[in-house]
Amino acid sequence: MKIAIDGMGGDHAPRAVVEGMVQALKEYNDLEIYITGPKDKIEAELFKYNYSKERVTIVNATEVIEANEHPVMALRKKKDSSIVKALNLVSTGECEAIISAGSTGAFLAGCTLIIGRIKGIERPALAPIMPGRRGKFMVVDVGANVDCKPEYLVQFAKMGKIYYEAMFDSKNTSVGLVNIGVEDEKGNELTKATYKLLKEEEFNFVGNVEPREIPKGEVNVLVTDGFVGNTVLKMYEGCASNLLGMIKDEIYSSSIFAKLGALLLKPVFKKLMVKFDYKEVGGAPFLGVKAVCIKAHGSSDGKAFKNAIKQAKSFKERGILSKIESEMAKTK
Amino acid sequence: MKIAIDGMGGDHAPRAVVEGMVQALKEYNDLEIYITGPKDKIEAELFKYNYSKERVTIVNATEVIEANEHPVMALRKKKDSSIVKALNLVSTGECEAIISAGSTGAFLAGCTLIIGRIKGIERPALAPIMPGRRGKFMVVDVGANVDCKPEYLVQFAKMGKIYYEAMFDSKNTSVGLVNIGVEDEKGNELTKATYKLLKEEEFNFVGNVEPREIPKGEVNVLVTDGFVGNTVLKMYEGCASNLLGMIKDEIYSSSIFAKLGALLLKPVFKKLMVKFDYKEVGGAPFLGVKAVCIKAHGSSDGKAFKNAIKQAKSFKERGILSKIESEMAKTK
Repeated sequence: MKIAIDGMGGDHAPRAVVEGMVQALKEYNDLEIYITGPKDKIEAELFKYNYSKERVTIVNATEVIEANEHPVMALRKKKDSSIVKALNLVSTGECEAIISAGSTGAFLAGCTLIIGRIKGIERPALAPIMPGRRGKFMVVDVGANVDCKPEYLVQFAKMGKIYYEAMFDSKNTSVGLVNIGVEDEKGNELTKATYKLLKEEEFNFVGNVEPREIPKGEVNVLVTDGFVGNTVLKMYEGCASNLLGMIKDEIYSSSIFAKLGALLLKPVFKKLMVKFDYKEVGGAPFLGVKAVCIKAHGSSDGKAFKNAIKQAKSFKERGILSKIESEMAKTK
Repeated sequence: MKIAIDGMGGDHAPRAVVEGMVQALKEYNDLEIYITGPKDKIEAELFKYNYSKERVTIVNATEVIEANEHPVMALRKKKDSSIVKALNLVSTGECEAIISAGSTGAFLAGCTLIIGRIKGIERPALAPIMPGRRGKFMVVDVGANVDCKPEYLVQFAKMGKIYYEAMFDSKNTSVGLVNIGVEDEKGNELTKATYKLLKEEEFNFVGNVEPREIPKGEVNVLVTDGFVGNTVLKMYEGCASNLLGMIKDEIYSSSIFAKLGALLLKPVFKKLMVKFDYKEVGGAPFLGVKAVCIKAHGSSDGKAFKNAIKQAKSFKERGILSKIESEMAKTK
């Protein structure tokens, strides 16, 4: 399998990208990697490792798209950026997958504009996997589409279900609609209309799911517009870190006994942190595009990149793209 | 001050309502309470206590509006419900404030339709106070208005600022817009348009606030549409309870040392739970109505009701209503 990697994407690029890539090459024999970025910088990183050189191609790219640039404008202007070069490798068919930890906006816009959508998908969606108390769950969409129509959310549901089912060997994957009440008639214009459409679908639609229930992780795939989905994702991150922070604050101002208690509980907190560690997951798939697209976290380290590559492999091998294509062909 | 209390609102009504009311009567000499509900049931509860009888009026009401009923329909049909009777006491001018722990939908619709809006306020908003790591913060709106126009959010900001400033003696109260990115041009149609309007206002507008930052509690008043606000509120609740649940799960399956650690840390967790205890706060003010309206939590106990009464008193005494009125008069 040939994968294009944006060598300059993320806070620790190209060091972390190359580190993860080399790890993945060791682990998976059938892997070939095309890495984009300034040739000299990438080579300097690669120089540190022993790796099978015939499986790595450096594609020179002199520019980088920054997070604060306007996505579409930047894509147009910076033709020689690491992200555009990686996208071109996929759009020409040279590679089957793309991974980037760079500007989310530019990556998502680029996947849609340069690689293209699957027939029948109006809006591709970013769909991270998150850790819940009872199990993993997926939220579609978390920011690619901030203003949505009900039909988009139905497409999100179909893609999410296919991905979740294939990746986690899940049976009867449950799909829920993020809403502010459980009753049928609750919600805003979008969720009320979407509810009616989802009820007509054949999959296991469990109805409205209140945000209070989301962290339980009892519903596998949650669909929502990108604004609310992004709010869910970021509230989850913010709550987790601030709650742990508040516990720390209290411990700091507490008795020696509480401090001893905290010491004894360290392994428990550590295990919890592993559950919340995005590096274990890889990245978030961008579903609905005609190729395997993985958005890695901006602060990805080597391990996170390695896992993003592993995820891209499974995404391909489990036939998710063709499953989405045939599901969409059915709808037409 | 005369306060109308829905005697049948909440999971523990009328027991908890009467308990809180009697406590408040003891604490505040200038208080008179009108309590609505089936006369015999309310009397049976009151019979348990010593209290100044001349300061309590029971207003008989034979019906109760349930949470699953359609708010506006129920208000029209159940003229003899405890909630409608309490609303009437305020609309006729008999009472200056209303407190209910009953159906949120019916209460909010009733406040708007029966009591009426302050001139210049298009949509009243529900605005709870929440505990953050660095301080209390307020979210306006958390569910009264699921589909909003930018102008509504500007009104939410003005009301929220006035309430926060008056209740917490806060100076230079900061106002933020809940959004999925900090940059000016980020967001959906609603937030982009709202951002421009808020920037022109005279108060301390700190710009977009990402949900990740909300639990920090560094911004005093956060404005958002009711759908996103409700998502923020419920994610906060859900994350807090599930994170503590996940810690418990881990402790349960851990060594005896971790269990001892948990025991030593109990006071820390207890202090944290107090911070998160809505019973300390009272209820959420419903801002923009021509009277003091407090929505108490459905599971309120006696203490929560007492604190909701205390809150209604401060709301009145600190002149928040007239401050909102004169602010709105300025706008016209």
